[in-house]
This record gives sequence, structure tokens and C-alpha cells, in this order.
Amino acid sequence: MCTIYEIAKRCGVSTTTVSRVLNHHPYVSEEKRQHILQVMKEMEYTPSSAARTLRSHQTKTIAVSVPAVDHPFFAQLIKGISKEALDQGYKAIVLQTFYQESLELEGLQLLKRKEVDGVILGALENKWEKIEPFLSNGPIVMANEYHQTADIPIIGYDEREAAYKAVDYLIRSGRKSIGFCFDTESSEAQKQRRKGYLDALSAHGLPLNEDWLFGEAFTIEDGFRLMDLIHGMPDTPDAIFTGNDQVAAGLIKRAISYGYQIPEDLAVIGYDNQDICEVTAPTITTIDIPIVELGQRSVQQMIQLLQDQKPLQRDHIQLPTRLVTREST
Amino acid sequence: MCTIYEIAKRCGVSTTTVSRVLNHHPYVSEEKRQHILQVMKEMEYTPSSAARTLRSHQTKTIAVSVPAVDHPFFAQLIKGISKEALDQGYKAIVLQTFYQESLELEGLQLLKRKEVDGVILGALENKWEKIEPFLSNGPIVMANEYHQTADIPIIGYDEREAAYKAVDYLIRSGRKSIGFCFDTESSEAQKQRRKGYLDALSAHGLPLNEDWLFGEAFTIEDGFRLMDLIHGMPDTPDAIFTGNDQVAAGLIKRAISYGYQIPEDLAVIGYDNQDICEVTAPTITTIDIPIVELGQRSVQQMIQLLQDQKPLQRDHIQLPTRLVTREST
Repeated sequence: MCTIYEIAKRCGVSTTTVSRVLNHHPYVSEEKRQHILQVMKEMEYTPSSAARTLRSHQTKTIAVSVPAVDHPFFAQLIKGISKEALDQGYKAIVLQTFYQESLELEGLQLLKRKEVDGVILGALENKWEKIEPFLSNGPIVMANEYHQTADIPIIGYDEREAAYKAVDYLIRSGRKSIGFCFDTESSEAQKQRRKGYLDALSAHGLPLNEDWLFGEAFTIEDGFRLMDLIHGMPDTPDAIFTGNDQVAAGLIKRAISYGYQIPEDLAVIGYDNQDICEVTAPTITTIDIPIVELGQRSVQQMIQLLQDQKPLQRDHIQLPTRLVTREST
Repeated sequence: MCTIYEIAKRCGVSTTTVSRVLNHHPYVSEEKRQHILQVMKEMEYTPSSAARTLRSHQTKTIAVSVPAVDHPFFAQLIKGISKEALDQGYKAIVLQTFYQESLELEGLQLLKRKEVDGVILGALENKWEKIEPFLSNGPIVMANEYHQTADIPIIGYDEREAAYKAVDYLIRSGRKSIGFCFDTESSEAQKQRRKGYLDALSAHGLPLNEDWLFGEAFTIEDGFRLMDLIHGMPDTPDAIFTGNDQVAAGLIKRAISYGYQIPEDLAVIGYDNQDICEVTAPTITTIDIPIVELGQRSVQQMIQLLQDQKPLQRDHIQLPTRLVTREST
């Protein structure tokens, strides 16, 4: 690729003059400007991105930080974010934290080093206090994850209400021993969800059995593992709110292999309304989340912050969720 | 964020001197160097990425171009690529083409503008002739996709042999009317796979029924649609090689709703060996592909090209695939 020096040499002008043309600076005669532009075209000159970034201080790139792209929820969130970014003339870069605090912080270094204009966090591995200092480098928007005090736009849904809805439905269908799965204890979104579960139990006067709280539930494989665990219990629950469609699918499959009738012996509710809910036997009752809209709204918030240079402030947008009943309940 | 000018001012030196320290240039006394480094630390100076890129001409970033991150195959390929890149000190940026030629070319502009060091193509939307010119800007490696003449590293598996294996297995189990699903006709990988299907039919003296070739098969939803189509045919196949686990899952679910016995009335084979194969009823026979290894190997090839500055040349690596038999056959 040719450089600004080669252009200048060919045109018989200084690099300063070429640079002025590139930056739409005055003090270059129209004739000279046309000549330089013509030579750039002939020599197929492309201003390097790094040089342009130095001038404009904008990369037109948004980073999306998620724990894992191979989790269907995050894959769809990324899809929504990428499409909206594209429509608005931005690129979306995807960063994976693999659920590690250090990799999340490393991703945020992109903001510090001005490689991206802003970051959308699809999850939160660190305590907010570790993230907050990066706000001096550029805007951060939270999509899906929740925090009580962070002064940034947070786009999510009412996790407490969604969980309440699911557990309330199980209890009204006659279930009395309801288990609850979660992924990590630290997540605020997960805490809200657990609150919904506890509130529903309490509203119906049901006690909490701590043996029926199951952590580290992310995948189909985890569903297998948890069902092995449940099957070995002296006192098994008659329903499980899994918080995750993959976990629900694994749990149902393994339960059937143990001879359980679903939903008669064990009712199961997932979370997300992924495609998988429609191909299992029985099909899976779940909470539908507007994932694509979640992605779109977070990009819209981000671009407002970038373009209007508005000061960051707390804004909590909650999108509606919906209980979708199928054969597993 | 403070700039090189502020550092220079505080130290009472010229920006040239600060720049020399940043670039490990000689002609700066050790005492002065230490003082400047100390001030940089105190003022929390981070050299901007754009400025560093201009100096080093390396972004330490690899772009991965895929049609859609929400397809499980590509999600896992990205995971493999990102992990390996991370281990080797590189970042992976994910680009989505949404199966569009123009977006694939737009992604390659990153290479032209030197925003990334190299590009790994997980699919190919354009004709190779449109991609080839970008090689003058940096290396391109193909992972999963295939091309007969491209002079670049191609890491994949023998699609013809994998398809042959699946169809041969169906025929040896007594099936005589075997359908075949594909996604797009243009893909070289898909052409190889179809060749395997045709070769297996021909090796067993079975004729091809063109009505049993089904295109645009990507998702669970497509599986539903194709089963509706098949169910309405006067002459239905007794087995389908779907080329995709999602399509297989949708097809099986819908076939059962029509009263088919699987595999008695219709045997089904998927492709990829995704988790979903283990939670459907019946579970799905499929072709196992070493997706994570595919991602790792493509990054290793890319980094060799970047670090050794070796000239690009054709290299075709084929990883082994495996038929995994389950209840759907």
C-alpha cells in the first residue's frame, strides 16, 4: 500500500500539503487539491485507519463483552447488537470473557486505548467498582445485566417479576416442592431472579428448602449433572425453575432416562425461549425474553451517548417478558 | 487522558524526547529516561493505540468472518479461534456477514485499512476472485470453507468423505430412498458434500431423485418447513442426510407430530455433533467435526504467517471426522 510520502513525492508537494487535502484544510489551491486527489486515486491510496483515528478520535466501533459466544442467549444478543450497529454505520467487535474477571478488564482496556468508542456489557464478571473507572475513557452500557447504583444506561427486563411469574405458575398448577437453578451467585440479575423465586414461595406460604438451590447451571451437560444429583436425593422436588433452556433440556432428557414422567413427576421451566424448547420431548415451558430488541436498544443508547456527547447518567429500561407454556409443565 | 505534550511540558523536555523514550530510541540520557518514565506513571499516561499502531504496524488483532454468530457451529468455531488467539497474545474480532456478499467485502476492508493483521474466513459468500485482491493487504486463512485453487492455508475436513460415510451407513442399514439437505449451492464445501452423497448412491447402484434435494436448510424452523414439504410428497424418502443438526432436530420433531416412527419410517442424520443431538427424542445420529481444533489450527496458521512473514502459499489441512450413531438411524 502506498503512503502519504509517495503521494507527496509523485505530486512534487510536501507531505503537509497532502495531509491538508486529506483533512479538508484550507490553504491549498483548488488546482493542486484536484491534482493530489487524482494521484491518490491512481495510486489507490487508502488513508490508514490508525492515522484517521488519530485525527477524528472516533473508531466507529463498539465492543460487546459477553462470557461466551457459544451460549445461545449471548449469540442472539450479539446478533441484535451487530445488526443495529451496522444499520447505524458502526462496527461491533465481540469480546469473550470466558466468565473471567481479568479478561473482562482486559477487554475494557480497548476503551482506555481508544480502540473502540464504547463498550456494551452483556454480563458483569467484576464488581462494579472495578469497572467504573473506565467511564472516564468512554461510555459503557449494560445490556441484560443489572446493577443497583451504576450511573449508566441499563437495558434489561424485570428478572424478579419474570421469576415470580414462572414459580407462581408452578405453584398454582399444584406444585409444592420447587427447585431453582442459577449460574453465578455474584450476578445482580441472578440475585433479582432468586428474589422472584423466594417472593413467590413466600406469597403462597411455601418454605424454602436450601437443598433445592442448584448453582453453576449453564449448559445441557449441567442439566444432566443436576438431574443425577436430584435423582439421588432422599427428598426430590416436584418442579424446577432452571433459569436456562439448555439446562432444562438436559434435565428433562436425563429425568426421562431415569423413568420420570414429565411433567407428572417433575415439571420443568426454562428461560430465554430458545429454539431448543420446541424440539425436545416434551417441549419446554419457558420465559420469553426480547433478546434482539435488548441488543438494538443498547446500541441505540450507546450511539446517543457517542453522537450527542451527552453526559452519562443512570437510566434503567425494562423490556417486557412473557411466560410461554408448553408440555413440560 | 493526558497526552505526550503534557508529559513533555511537565518534564521540561521536547515531545521528541518523550517520543524517543516511548520508542526505545537511543540518544536520551538514562537519568532523563527514568524521569520521563516516572512522570508517565504518575500521570497515568497510556500511549494511544492508534499512535502505537502507526509505529508498530501491527494491531495484534485477527478478524474472524462468519455468516451468523447465532448458528451453533460458528459460535463454537469463534470460541476455538478466540481462545487460541488469546493464548498467543492476540485479540479476535468477530465480523458477521449475515450471508451477504457486500458485508463480507466490507469486513475485508479492515485488512485494507490495517485495523486487523489478518482475516480468518469461516465461510465464503463471494467468489474467490473478489477476495483474492485483499491478499496484498495481509494474510487470509480459510477455516471450514473450501476452495480448489486459492493460494492460502485452508483448514477443513474432507466433506466428500464425511457425506459418503453418512449416506453409505444409511444404505447399508437398508435404506433405498435417501434425501439430502444443503444450505447454499454456491459453497465449495457444500459441493464436496453433495459429491459424497452422489458417490455413495452411485457406489450402491441407487438412482438420484432430484425431488429429494432440499436447499436453504439452516435452522430448526427450516427442518419444520422441509418436513411439511416431504410429508406432502407422493413419493417420500425413507432417510434424510440433513447436513445440519438443527435441521435434523426440527425435521424429527415435525415428523413425529405427523405420526412417523423414527427411525423406522424415516432415518435422519445430522452434521456437526452439537449438544442438541443428545436431548431430542430420539437422539440424533450425526457427523462429529473437530470444531474447536479447526479454530485453533486456523489461528496457528495465521500467526505463523504474521510472525514469520512467510509468503502465503496453498496448504490444505484436513482434520478427521467421525460418524456418531444414535437413535435416529
